[in-house]
Amino acid sequence: MFSYQPPVKHMQYVLSDVLSATDTLRVDAGYNEIDEQLVRQVLEEAGRFTAEVLFPVNASGDRQGCRFESGAVFTPDGFRDAYRQFVDSGWAALACDPGYGGQGLPHVLNCALQEMMISANHAWTMYPGVLHGAYTCLKAHGSEELKQYYLPKIVSGEWLVTMALTEPQAGSDVGLLRTRAVEGDTGTYRLSGNKIFISGGEHDLTENIVHLVLARIPGGPEGSKGVSLFVVPKICPDGSRNQVTCTGIEHKMGIRGSATCSLEFAGATGWLVGEPHRGLAAMFVMMNAARMLVGAQGLGIAETVYQNAARYANERLQMKAVDRPAERKDQPADPIALHPPVRRLLLSQRAYVEGGRMMLYWSGLMLDLAERHPIPQRRQDFEQMLALVTPVVKAFLTEKGFQGASDALQVYGGYGVITETGVEQYLRDCRVTMIYEGTNEIQAIDLVVRKILGDQGVRLGRFLELVRATVQAERTGPFAGHSECLSKLATELAAIARAVCESGTANLTPLHWVAGDVLRLMGHCIIGWLLLRSASASCNNREDDYAFHDERLETVDHYFAYEFTETHAALAVLRASFAQHGLSLTW
Amino acid sequence: MFSYQPPVKHMQYVLSDVLSATDTLRVDAGYNEIDEQLVRQVLEEAGRFTAEVLFPVNASGDRQGCRFESGAVFTPDGFRDAYRQFVDSGWAALACDPGYGGQGLPHVLNCALQEMMISANHAWTMYPGVLHGAYTCLKAHGSEELKQYYLPKIVSGEWLVTMALTEPQAGSDVGLLRTRAVEGDTGTYRLSGNKIFISGGEHDLTENIVHLVLARIPGGPEGSKGVSLFVVPKICPDGSRNQVTCTGIEHKMGIRGSATCSLEFAGATGWLVGEPHRGLAAMFVMMNAARMLVGAQGLGIAETVYQNAARYANERLQMKAVDRPAERKDQPADPIALHPPVRRLLLSQRAYVEGGRMMLYWSGLMLDLAERHPIPQRRQDFEQMLALVTPVVKAFLTEKGFQGASDALQVYGGYGVITETGVEQYLRDCRVTMIYEGTNEIQAIDLVVRKILGDQGVRLGRFLELVRATVQAERTGPFAGHSECLSKLATELAAIARAVCESGTANLTPLHWVAGDVLRLMGHCIIGWLLLRSASASCNNREDDYAFHDERLETVDHYFAYEFTETHAALAVLRASFAQHGLSLTW
Repeated sequence: MFSYQPPVKHMQYVLSDVLSATDTLRVDAGYNEIDEQLVRQVLEEAGRFTAEVLFPVNASGDRQGCRFESGAVFTPDGFRDAYRQFVDSGWAALACDPGYGGQGLPHVLNCALQEMMISANHAWTMYPGVLHGAYTCLKAHGSEELKQYYLPKIVSGEWLVTMALTEPQAGSDVGLLRTRAVEGDTGTYRLSGNKIFISGGEHDLTENIVHLVLARIPGGPEGSKGVSLFVVPKICPDGSRNQVTCTGIEHKMGIRGSATCSLEFAGATGWLVGEPHRGLAAMFVMMNAARMLVGAQGLGIAETVYQNAARYANERLQMKAVDRPAERKDQPADPIALHPPVRRLLLSQRAYVEGGRMMLYWSGLMLDLAERHPIPQRRQDFEQMLALVTPVVKAFLTEKGFQGASDALQVYGGYGVITETGVEQYLRDCRVTMIYEGTNEIQAIDLVVRKILGDQGVRLGRFLELVRATVQAERTGPFAGHSECLSKLATELAAIARAVCESGTANLTPLHWVAGDVLRLMGHCIIGWLLLRSASASCNNREDDYAFHDERLETVDHYFAYEFTETHAALAVLRASFAQHGLSLTW
Repeated sequence: MFSYQPPVKHMQYVLSDVLSATDTLRVDAGYNEIDEQLVRQVLEEAGRFTAEVLFPVNASGDRQGCRFESGAVFTPDGFRDAYRQFVDSGWAALACDPGYGGQGLPHVLNCALQEMMISANHAWTMYPGVLHGAYTCLKAHGSEELKQYYLPKIVSGEWLVTMALTEPQAGSDVGLLRTRAVEGDTGTYRLSGNKIFISGGEHDLTENIVHLVLARIPGGPEGSKGVSLFVVPKICPDGSRNQVTCTGIEHKMGIRGSATCSLEFAGATGWLVGEPHRGLAAMFVMMNAARMLVGAQGLGIAETVYQNAARYANERLQMKAVDRPAERKDQPADPIALHPPVRRLLLSQRAYVEGGRMMLYWSGLMLDLAERHPIPQRRQDFEQMLALVTPVVKAFLTEKGFQGASDALQVYGGYGVITETGVEQYLRDCRVTMIYEGTNEIQAIDLVVRKILGDQGVRLGRFLELVRATVQAERTGPFAGHSECLSKLATELAAIARAVCESGTANLTPLHWVAGDVLRLMGHCIIGWLLLRSASASCNNREDDYAFHDERLETVDHYFAYEFTETHAALAVLRASFAQHGLSLTW
């Protein structure tokens, strides 16, 4: 039976053994009340909620889907009840300011919660998916009045939020949007236009839905510089129904329990958030938080499919293994987990689950430090580093999540494509994560052009210093080989940054061609670095739990032999492509 | 609108310019009546049938699926009518012996037909999918009586066929099957047992269904050496209904219009095919033909999604391209096909469509030569070479088909996951091709252990001689760089073959770990070799049609810069894995 077991033990390992998160949070982010005990308690409670409340309505939600009926959307059976429990237990408020009713817990714990929610039920998690991003955006850019009115309801989860950007002709290119906002006489605006692909644009989970809408105020500049952000509630503060209607929902490959809506704004009342024409900047606050959480989605998917594939592979008996354990010599067949190609599929999945979790939580910790480190310069440093890493978290983890789902399905063989088995839903559900919140191609260009070329490689250099410190620490001893692999990659990335800066803003074409490969190299550099730290931690702590730590060491060995090797292909592409464009790459 | 345009022009190019197929068929396979005119006629007719009859019921068949009702299966609307046209036009009989009513056309043309059928409608094509394999198997192993009774009906398509191997506990490991066949007194057998995952196990397309069933005759050896093959018709020759019942159909990720049935044999009457206990050998005749056609499925999927993604990318306007054509300077946005990351997704798809077609048709041609070359030794050589290449065709082309579907979906962005767009169905449909007819992992082990180690690398060596001849011919001139890449890979593959033989049958474990990488290297060697030949052909024939041939040359340049580079990662894995297992790899 397909199931979900919250990986609390590995989460604690990453937080404590690999990242020393509680110490960092206490010392550098002023979370005085945080300790191992509290972390475990939050993880265990979140695990219970996701496994016992969200997961049981995951497969049924996919089968049933959403129902659209004359403007109303009905979510699958059980979604409402699960949402009520989510609100009642205070999960919505986890990382929000206690001033607005939040629990004020660190972002890194919210990352773990989001991962578990997706592991249990991707479609359901879409509804509160932009809740935290909308909170951040309104908190940073909304007027005091808007904040007082909306934030407590959003923080508690009493009202849900949408992010309404996309129009049929304006997807990745927000600047092409046409929705108009005409100023009225009471300081409000009238919004008219059509939005599509709005997750949770209409549903039966909350009484009110708060739409954050991008629109143009007539007379403003063309393109993305003339875009403003508005709050458009489904129910206006005076209790009247606003002029925003759901005109339909999409039939989709996956996340079928999530209502993907078309919305018609027919003179709907909206309130401006921030400055006119500066909507994109305000929205980007939301997008960046959202991008990290999309990375969490890739990880959450990868975790669930891996644990199920691993269990199945240990139960399913087919053919004799090439290296049969002596005690199985009389059996007609062995567990398929003993066959090297299946074992390899499983270990590769595990490498990205473990390394991906380290990457995500490391980023979450940086978000906490960027907000709360006592030294302003350090806050800025963490913010810069996080900005460098965010596109990698989003794109690399979603790519590996999809790959993991496909690999897990392969482990199941013919049973994998049968709906009842459970894994094919995860493959269908996760495919969109490589597209939404900025396609993975856009993430790659963001990384290379804005984050590397943008500061002439300075923050990349600072990241590589972190890597080199670990390389140096492990250059002798049991992980010398891995350390050398990583050292070479750091050297190569530094050379790539030089070539990127040499090409410069006047010659972006060659950078756009290889951006995806640079992102993949960065992904491996981050994961390789953190897995190496994990190897060292497990080596030191082996006596606590031999079985657990030996599994971690096996993961790292497998990763460097079978997955880190992807860097060779990416590098060969970079060399060939740069050569075609007359750029050299040397180190 | 999602559509399918049969790529007749490129098919003719592959057959004529790259493979000189008509000459070869005439001179070496005794097809005296074959000429360019006949080939074009067959391709155009097949194109019309697939695009005008099969494609229009593809999306509707997915939406509707099959219906199971008290033992009966109803295919989606339009499937019956399409099947009648298939039979009436004689497509079923294309490559079968005129002695049994076939058209006696070459296998290579059947490959093109199969590719087009899948391109248009994967689910529908599952019904006649094993028709040709069953024909081959019965023709080779059936008694004269069985052949006279069944072959004409199968060749014409009047009756459809199934391949009934899988049981719940016996998937990849056929030796674990339990279905029993007890000999009766009339020379027939009574079969009892349960089979699952039987494509077309029941349907409303034909009056009779001929099941080829693997079962055990009591008293025979255990495992796969005690498995016999039987013909079990749904309707017996005396007109009575046989004791085989469909007990249900599966809900699946894709190919939903194809009925995947559970069958119960309750003392069903069966006729032995070939020798008792030699069923697997007989079935393998069928499996090998089937494997090549599964490769055709990967290609067929890749073609349809590529042509749609390319059209969409040329129509969809989003953002300004880094290199804007002068004539577009005043436009607010450019076609996304002009953005390098999208262009790269498209060109990579095209590389595998073009190279994959060459690989498939080259294999099809070898099948013709293996059957009909006038010199027995040469027939055997072609058969050996085909046996080497078959697992690569199956696994490499299905892997690239799935990748192509995912890449095409990415080009569509958010629209990609919407069912109405069309591409997501192809992604769902094709995933199973990496599993059925022997998982891609099993193909890889077949390649390394049976096909390379099995003859101590002799036929691999013979294949590499073909590659080296092309390398040599192109070592100077415009493709010297590509030639050098390929030359290195040939050297590396020869070294790998030596390491494989050195490891030997006593030490298979390291070979099982890296079999997938060896297969990927072989895939690139075959495709790289044929694309290089295509570059040379296009260079020579450029004057015939500049636009067409320049596109081919662009494909080859792209392939070697962005895709052939996968070989670097595969090689790095081989090195690391061999080192872990104490094997060396040097050249």
